[in-house]
Amino acid sequence: LPRVSVHPRLLEDCHWLGRFAVSHVMLHRNAGVPWFILVPQVDPGVIELHDLDALQRRLLDEELDTVARFTKAEFGARKLNVAAIGNLVPQLHVHVVGRHEGDPCWPRVVWGNLPEGPAWPPERVAAIAEALAKLRPMDRERAPE
Amino acid sequence: LPRVSVHPRLLEDCHWLGRFAVSHVMLHRNAGVPWFILVPQVDPGVIELHDLDALQRRLLDEELDTVARFTKAEFGARKLNVAAIGNLVPQLHVHVVGRHEGDPCWPRVVWGNLPEGPAWPPERVAAIAEALAKLRPMDRERAPE
Repeated sequence: LPRVSVHPRLLEDCHWLGRFAVSHVMLHRNAGVPWFILVPQVDPGVIELHDLDALQRRLLDEELDTVARFTKAEFGARKLNVAAIGNLVPQLHVHVVGRHEGDPCWPRVVWGNLPEGPAWPPERVAAIAEALAKLRPMDRERAPE
Repeated sequence: LPRVSVHPRLLEDCHWLGRFAVSHVMLHRNAGVPWFILVPQVDPGVIELHDLDALQRRLLDEELDTVARFTKAEFGARKLNVAAIGNLVPQLHVHVVGRHEGDPCWPRVVWGNLPEGPAWPPERVAAIAEALAKLRPMDRERAPE
């Protein structure tokens, strides 16, 4: 798969954790909720899930499921919000957000509602990346441009 | 597949259009945006996408893609928002919303932001159901309980 760039807005909002077979795995800097964003490394013209080819789609689903299960197990999320939106950032990216009663914007969605929150401590970011890399092969060297 | 019920909130908010192989296909009553909701007929204990078995997941993806392509073609949507949220309605359901600049809440997400809008004319609802049934086999007789 080619090494594609990641939209500057995503790089700004998120920590880059690594790269699964298809997707860059990002962690949103707002630690108010556990919020991951997967960015498939595909042709930049692909902006919808249904534009992925069958293999890309299957792999993306598997990668999303890994992150989803991890989010439930690691953060005790009661419910996951999994969404491809892209109204502001056209590059295809999929959110996986762990939610629970009492989180900073429950039961509203995080988009447009999550108040500014704490940052993840750097050692916590590293530990999350390491834990994900144990669940699915992850390249942690080649950061996106 | 068993005939399962659909959460009363979804039945209240939506027109029932029919049933694909896996999912009930619903159209949100607020015609401010084209907003479909697919409700897979699965064990009520399944509340996350990653809890679906592989066949259910693949079929759901295909059904979502049919609705997504239809939404882009029929309503000229610029971007689709595809999301499994479920903070309020635990039964697994996936939104497919067609968005464009200038719609009633662009670029914000529809959840929590879409103002009350017009209703779909009944003949338009029927025409949408008929068009979808031409794209993928759809049972339009057995409405959910």
